[in-house]
Parts: sequence; structure tokens; C-alpha cells
Amino acid sequence: MGNHDAGRTPVTVIGLGLLGRALAGAFVAGGHPTTVWNRTAGRAGPLVERGARLAGSAAEAVAAGPLVVVCLSDYEAVREVVGPLGEALRGRVLVNLTSGTSRGARETAGWAAERGVAYLDGAVLAVPEAIGTADAVVLYSGPREAFDPHEPVLRSLGAGTTYLGGDHGLSSLYDVAALSVMWNILNGFLHGAALLGAAGVEATSFAPVAKTLIETVAGWVPGYARQIDDGEYPALDSTLGTHLAAMEHLVRESESLGVSTELPRFVEALAGRAVAGGRGGEGYAAMVELFRRP
Amino acid sequence: MGNHDAGRTPVTVIGLGLLGRALAGAFVAGGHPTTVWNRTAGRAGPLVERGARLAGSAAEAVAAGPLVVVCLSDYEAVREVVGPLGEALRGRVLVNLTSGTSRGARETAGWAAERGVAYLDGAVLAVPEAIGTADAVVLYSGPREAFDPHEPVLRSLGAGTTYLGGDHGLSSLYDVAALSVMWNILNGFLHGAALLGAAGVEATSFAPVAKTLIETVAGWVPGYARQIDDGEYPALDSTLGTHLAAMEHLVRESESLGVSTELPRFVEALAGRAVAGGRGGEGYAAMVELFRRP
Repeated sequence: MGNHDAGRTPVTVIGLGLLGRALAGAFVAGGHPTTVWNRTAGRAGPLVERGARLAGSAAEAVAAGPLVVVCLSDYEAVREVVGPLGEALRGRVLVNLTSGTSRGARETAGWAAERGVAYLDGAVLAVPEAIGTADAVVLYSGPREAFDPHEPVLRSLGAGTTYLGGDHGLSSLYDVAALSVMWNILNGFLHGAALLGAAGVEATSFAPVAKTLIETVAGWVPGYARQIDDGEYPALDSTLGTHLAAMEHLVRESESLGVSTELPRFVEALAGRAVAGGRGGEGYAAMVELFRRP
Repeated sequence: MGNHDAGRTPVTVIGLGLLGRALAGAFVAGGHPTTVWNRTAGRAGPLVERGARLAGSAAEAVAAGPLVVVCLSDYEAVREVVGPLGEALRGRVLVNLTSGTSRGARETAGWAAERGVAYLDGAVLAVPEAIGTADAVVLYSGPREAFDPHEPVLRSLGAGTTYLGGDHGLSSLYDVAALSVMWNILNGFLHGAALLGAAGVEATSFAPVAKTLIETVAGWVPGYARQIDDGEYPALDSTLGTHLAAMEHLVRESESLGVSTELPRFVEALAGRAVAGGRGGEGYAAMVELFRRP
């Protein structure tokens, strides 16, 4: 394929769902000749108006340049669409941003290796509207020699363009781990909103306090991570024992206001087990030891 | 007590645990004549060096000014220490920053009302080191006429000084709701760290991605809160059904890496119930309806 000025590297985007359209739009905005294709027609209109080229087939789309980004509904769809393109993809870099498991990523990498296709698996940790902005985190895993030449192009998708390592499964693993953080944050906030709602407080009154708290906890994450890597969990603020006592308050408040106690009881039971296991004097990060065991 | 120049209002702090010392230190730093007292001696040294006055008794401490801040281990301790001071407290404002339940706050408010003591219950949503900084959120509930005159003084404790309303129980409710958000964030992060750790990834490698994600989700909270108050949960990005499919990925990854599946299964079961209840096409905020039911 030779070298390309990053600002001129042609990009192909296959899959024009909500996210795929956002990806293609970001490449167009980044000044890249962008060729798009979708299994069902009719979704490319606004992109074509902005300068993208709609290919007549997947093979034609793939032929347009050295970098092919695929974003479909699942890996099953990837197999159906990309599977027949093996020969057309040879020598190109295939970047799969479809959500899936690390196993699916490794299987697809095996398929690509057999066909001489350089393969990067990736994960988009951003809502479609955030694509192309400073907030968008997009993760990549697979051979570094496939990532490095295209990093400037991929950076059009977001400032948080991150290469994780050679194991193709890494982006899916980071993806579900990060999604898990998201679900847990939202569960905590939504249960809190239910609790305060039962006391007559609007969720919009709770939101600023919750938002500040969430941002504060984000700032603790690097320190907790260092504790985890060191395998030592000193209680720099509260001990697990103190947390457990406050968890009991949350259960009681939930009971007396008549909202669900399921989430607080679950949280309390986890911490209670860590305390019963002798970790009551350690900091919250010690809970990682509980999660490590099946 | 008359009017006081905010910068000169004397403050009394009772309880010199880690948090109490931070509170007293912030009042000293704010230029307030600060009188401190603790049940066990020997903790006031550094504060006295910085200009605080150590009282010989709780009654003497209370007599030093119009504003008395109490921060003890629990409400039992508050009853023991403050209980005998009813007469000495008359006409003053008692601010109780001890952690507890809304019931404890309302009971203490009843006790204070019988003795002519203006009472504010409060909650500190900050680690001791953050007290006095822009990051510290301190919540207050109780009569506004007790809060307003002392707001400038209380603001020495943190930029996030927030008056919640007349119901004395509100600060405890906000407190446990916010702590719940914190525990859930940390559980999500620690489980993710355990999962990635099993794949050979250090927690410090996951931390930057998790931190950015947490900050991003913080930005969604006000919008979700508006949905909750409106009682409508449009899926602006992913539907609950899509989330549920990704939760299944997390369970599988946890299984195959041999880490605990308890948290992901719990999260999946909650969302699964919401989807089974017909909310699969709605956004994640619809989960609040699940949490509202006991």
C-alpha cells in the first residue's frame, strides 16, 4: 500500500448503523477519502452529501484503501460480511470495532491470519455523538505493526485512541470491564434516585451531588489501581469495617422508605464477606481479592 | 449571639477524629477563632499549634461561640457527649456532621427542639484530606434560618457546601445514596481489575480507561435525572436490551478467566428483569422503576 500522508489515507467503513455512521462521519471530518458500504441501502445519504463515497459492494468498498473499519451488530454479522472478502482484504489492515467477546476477537484474528490480513480488534467506549471528540475512548488490540502506521488516521475517531497490546482479546476485555463500571455507576445512581424520590426529593436535586461524587471517585482510581498491583490495601480513608456499617444504614433507609433493598443488600453482603474474611481493617480496594475468586 | 463578621465568627468543634481534626483545621485556616474538645486527650496538639484553643470541657467548648460543630463516631456518641449540654447549647446552632441515619437525625432534631437548640444535621461527602478544598461536598439539612447566617463560615469546609432543605433526615439520605454510588463504582472497577488481572493486565493499565469512563458517565447523570423526573426513559444511546446482551459477554468473560461471576450475574439479573418487564426498548434510566419497588 506504500506510505500515506495521514490526512489523505483512504478509509473504508463497513456497517452504517448509528455507530458506523458516526465513525465514517469522523473520518470524513478528518479529511480522509472515505468509502462506505452497508448491507441494507439507504443509510449513506447524509454521509455521501458530506463527501463519502458509497461503494456498490463490500468488495468494492474494501478495494478503496489500505484501512478497512468494520462496525456491525455482532461477530456473526462480521463473519457473514467479511468472510467472503478474504482475498480482497489480503495486505490490508482490518479493524473490527464490532462489540463482542475476547474469544470472538481471537477467532476472527485466526481467520485473518490464515488469509494474510492484518487484524486489529477494537472497542468503542463512547456514545455515537462523542465520536471524533476529546471524550471518545477507542481501544485497539492486535499486532502493533498494524496499529502504528494507522494511528494518526484512527485518532480521527477520538482523542482517547489507545493501543492495548498484541493479544486480540484485550479490547473486548477492557470493553466489558469498562461497561461493568458504567452499569454499576448507573445502578448506584438510579437506586439512590429511587431512595431519595421516595423521600420526596427530585432526581435533578440529587444529580449535582452524585455527579461531583462520581468525579471525585474517578480521581481515586489510579491510587486504588496501584494498591491492587502492589497487593496491599491500606485504609487511607475509611476501613472496610466502617464502610460496612454505613452499608447497613443504606439497607435500613431503603427498608423504611419502601424501595428495593436488593442492591444495597448485595453490596453489603459482598463487603460483609470481605470483613468476615479478616479484611475489616483494610481499605476498600481489598475487595478485589474477593472478586478474584470464582 | 448578635451578628458576626463571617471571617471572625468563633467556631467550636467537638470530636477530633481524623475528620474532626480536618474540620477544625479548615476553620482555623479560614481565620475563625476555633475552640476544640475531644473526649480523649492528646489529639489537639497540632491544631493548638496552628492557633486553635483546647477547651477543658465540652461545656466550656460550647460556650466559646454561636456555632458548634460535632463530628463523632456515631449518634450514640453524640447522645453521650451532647446530651448533657442541653442548657449550654440553648440559643446556639448545633451542626452534627456525624454519620448516621435519617431517623437518628430526626430524633436528634427532636431532642434539640425541646431544648431551644437550633439544629442542623449534615454529612461530609469527602475524605478528610479534601476538607477545605473545592472538592469537598458537605450537605446540611434543617431550618434554613439556622443555616443561612453561618453559611459563610461553613463554606470554610469546602466549596461544595449545600443546603438540602428543612427535613433533618435529608443529609443522611443523600449521604447513603452517594456512598452507594461510590461503593458501586468501586465494585465495578475492582471486579474489572480482577478480570483484567486474570488476563495478565495490570490494574494501573486499566485505571486510565476506567477513570475516563467514570468521568464520562458522570456527565450523563444530569440527563438521566431529568428522564427520571419526567418518568420517561428514551434510549438515547443503547437500549436496555443491548446492555443486557453485553452483560452476558461480561459473565462469559468472567467465567472463562476464572474470576467471580457474582457481580456481573447480579447486574445481568437486574437488567434481565427490567427487560422481561417490557423495558428492553427503553434506556438504562428505566431501571429506576425496578429500584422503586421493595
